Amino acid sequence: MAVVEVTVIPLGTGSPSISQYVAECHKLLEQADDLQVQLTPMSTIIEGELDRIFEVVKQLHAVPFTKGALRVSTTIRIDDRRDKPLTMQGKIKSVTDKL
Amino acid sequence: MAVVEVTVIPLGTGSPSISQYVAECHKLLEQADDLQVQLTPMSTIIEGELDRIFEVVKQLHAVPFTKGALRVSTTIRIDDRRDKPLTMQGKIKSVTDKL
Amino acid sequence: MAVVEVTVIPLGTGSPSISQYVAECHKLLEQADDLQVQLTPMSTIIEGELDRIFEVVKQLHAVPFTKGALRVSTTIRIDDRRDKPLTMQGKIKSVTDKL
Amino acid sequence: MAVVEVTVIPLGTGSPSISQYVAECHKLLEQADDLQVQLTPMSTIIEGELDRIFEVVKQLHAVPFTKGALRVSTTIRIDDRRDKPLTMQGKIKSVTDKL
Repeated sequence: MAVVEVTVIPLGTGSPSISQYVAECHKLLEQADDLQVQLTPMSTIIEGELDRIFEVVKQLHAVPFTKGALRVSTTIRIDDRRDKPLTMQGKIKSVTDKL
Repeated sequence: MAVVEVTVIPLGTGSPSISQYVAECHKLLEQADDLQVQLTPMSTIIEGELDRIFEVVKQLHAVPFTKGALRVSTTIRIDDRRDKPLTMQGKIKSVTDKL
Repeated sequence: MAVVEVTVIPLGTGSPSISQYVAECHKLLEQADDLQVQLTPMSTIIEGELDRIFEVVKQLHAVPFTKGALRVSTTIRIDDRRDKPLTMQGKIKSVTDKL
Repeated sequence: MAVVEVTVIPLGTGSPSISQYVAECHKLLEQADDLQVQLTPMSTIIEGELDRIFEVVKQLHAVPFTKGALRVSTTIRIDDRRDKPLTMQGKIKSVTDKL
């Protein structure tokens, strides 16, 4: 299990607003019952099996092209820990427990 | 006003756990009354005046060194929009309104 | 064809040096005859067919685990443009032509 | 001394090409005699004193706004090592020495 952060940004769309592309990505993620998903003000965070997340990330990257974008900049950050289970909730808890 | 995502990672600490460093960063952020802060499973997101955020980010980057780390990898992503107010809450709302 | 930047960082290894992991990743990339690869001081940049790059990036991400790391932070940035060919050389040239 | 990678992307410009903005950033960097600069196909890498780099990065982030962009996404990745000198050339050498 890994926790992965994804940001998909279309370039040259003519408008500085990109929330419609993000919403389209989240509609796609709502169908992925095997993944935990959190929308943040700067990204989408996905928890699940890493190969499965790669598959979904490829689909998310393709979303703006299907909506007419000519260029897409996608950033993916993988946090993968093998000595103990890694979850979004667990990561937050281990910080807040120390505050 | 900008929204900025920050991740501070110490390298070579001997342990794969880094939550103690993140907690230390958040103690520092709790003193910044002029900034909105959100902890996510992959980062810290800060909303505020950009020059002020740069100042704070420099302090966050320095935190692991004060705790003994020898190398720090810090990632900063700035979202800065000048045609309308940009807030963490507004960014989330503009996506969820479309879902 | 896409241009993709990858950075693979092992956490908690006990030493702030990570060049041995980067070298191991590049040995793996040397076998990928269908990809163009450039080592920079901050990352590895790969040019090629996107699905193929994803495949290789998964292998790069796994490298530190095979060398004993318990946690790996991998950052991937994809630049994918569909209105004209995108190459590492072409991207540099389009900037330097304007200088 | 730190090594810092910067990518400045204007959003909603109407064209997927952004090399004119990158070129403008590099004209600005050519005036910074105290910094080492390398253009890569995915970013600009800067070596120098960290406070000085922050100052320059703020200027680079502002460049697209002066050219009419309404929204700018800037990514900064800092590699800061305090146990030995860190240079762009030294980082590349420590990898190629192992190949």
